[in-house]
Amino acid sequence: MIKIAIIGSGNVAQHLISAFVQSSHTEIIQVFSRRKFASGNIPVVHHLNELAEADLYIIAVSDDAIAEISSELPFENRLVAHTSGSVSIEALNSKNRKAVFYPLQTFSKNRDTDFKVIPICLETASGSDYDLLEKTAKSISEKAFSISSDQRKSIHVSAVFVNNFVNHLYKIGNDICNTNHVPFEILLPLIRETAEKIMTLSPQEAQTGPAKRNDVQTINAHLEFLSDQNQQNIYKILTQSIQNDKNL
Amino acid sequence: MIKIAIIGSGNVAQHLISAFVQSSHTEIIQVFSRRKFASGNIPVVHHLNELAEADLYIIAVSDDAIAEISSELPFENRLVAHTSGSVSIEALNSKNRKAVFYPLQTFSKNRDTDFKVIPICLETASGSDYDLLEKTAKSISEKAFSISSDQRKSIHVSAVFVNNFVNHLYKIGNDICNTNHVPFEILLPLIRETAEKIMTLSPQEAQTGPAKRNDVQTINAHLEFLSDQNQQNIYKILTQSIQNDKNL
Repeated sequence: MIKIAIIGSGNVAQHLISAFVQSSHTEIIQVFSRRKFASGNIPVVHHLNELAEADLYIIAVSDDAIAEISSELPFENRLVAHTSGSVSIEALNSKNRKAVFYPLQTFSKNRDTDFKVIPICLETASGSDYDLLEKTAKSISEKAFSISSDQRKSIHVSAVFVNNFVNHLYKIGNDICNTNHVPFEILLPLIRETAEKIMTLSPQEAQTGPAKRNDVQTINAHLEFLSDQNQQNIYKILTQSIQNDKNL
Repeated sequence: MIKIAIIGSGNVAQHLISAFVQSSHTEIIQVFSRRKFASGNIPVVHHLNELAEADLYIIAVSDDAIAEISSELPFENRLVAHTSGSVSIEALNSKNRKAVFYPLQTFSKNRDTDFKVIPICLETASGSDYDLLEKTAKSISEKAFSISSDQRKSIHVSAVFVNNFVNHLYKIGNDICNTNHVPFEILLPLIRETAEKIMTLSPQEAQTGPAKRNDVQTINAHLEFLSDQNQQNIYKILTQSIQNDKNL
């Protein structure tokens, strides 16, 4: 049984807690939270000096609080991991054994997440700690990857494109539908299929549309149709980017 | 039994044929194709004057060929529909009864499509033809919508954003992964969840990330990380668009 203490009580912390609770290989011995927080039978502590001995401390707090809270830990030479995609392993205080445990997924408060399919990106400062970290990851997910801080940074940037920016394009589609009194619901099967296609085809193979076909007439008609300057600019830059794509 | 003739043998035509063949309410009596084309037991004709009498002729050809082929049809006063998202119903020749039968989906040669979940956007020039068109749509799909040519145009533009442009963002994510020797596979669960979230949350509710949080430090680190000028420009314009979003 791997004993884990979770430091933090936000979105990622809560999803990790419910995943570890369901695993028979891990035990959450404590959750540290500054604010009031209830999590079933798991003991919650509000001061760092109340933290008991664990095999692994997982810091799941906002990016800019990681360095500080890791320096405030009242113990040394224990295994401490943060969960951020964009913070280097070096941000952790050197008095403890440093690691990263980064689940690559978008977590929503109002949506359950199946942890089994979530890739977990792992890094340890010392090779001898990797085994325990990997066992911990595999207790909740089928996919554990050894990923360096540099690689993780590139994954995080990619994730901004395929998650944050993609969602914003959904938002623009929604806005255009609203303006024209069309139910956004009509686009949902297309949105789903666009994502599903990528599970089996490369993005190059899956690319379709007026930009790919270089259908100037349709592109101009669309630009004329869009009255919003911002939507026009985004249409132009993405159309050009598809047209310039040397791999097509 | 609704008798249908399909005019065209491309991607959309083929998907329509296989959907109608599976329905017990429709019969494909002929397929017109200029090129050699085999489609099971369905008779294929190569000249428009060989077309027999049908309840509905569906023109599934490229956008710029619709007007011409509809003017070449050797009969009058029959129901003729095109399948394009971006062409007005008025492009069809007036000697026949005009209609639009636009399935809103991205069709790939190497991927089967479940027509049942595909929204079909319907329009008829004459109200008395709508019933037959709707019955035809409902014989293969659970979702038929009455959509005007103007509304259809807005749907087509939205579809470019949520399908073509989204796929291009997947492509950029893939490029960044390749450059940094990270398997693109690691992003697939995130891509799928980003789409699935939109089935139950609005795009506003689903939006996360550094732009939404106005996390300037991470945004600058990402811009510094991106060496490709085009990727930088797209990152900037989409980040600004999220930040300027008044509804957030």
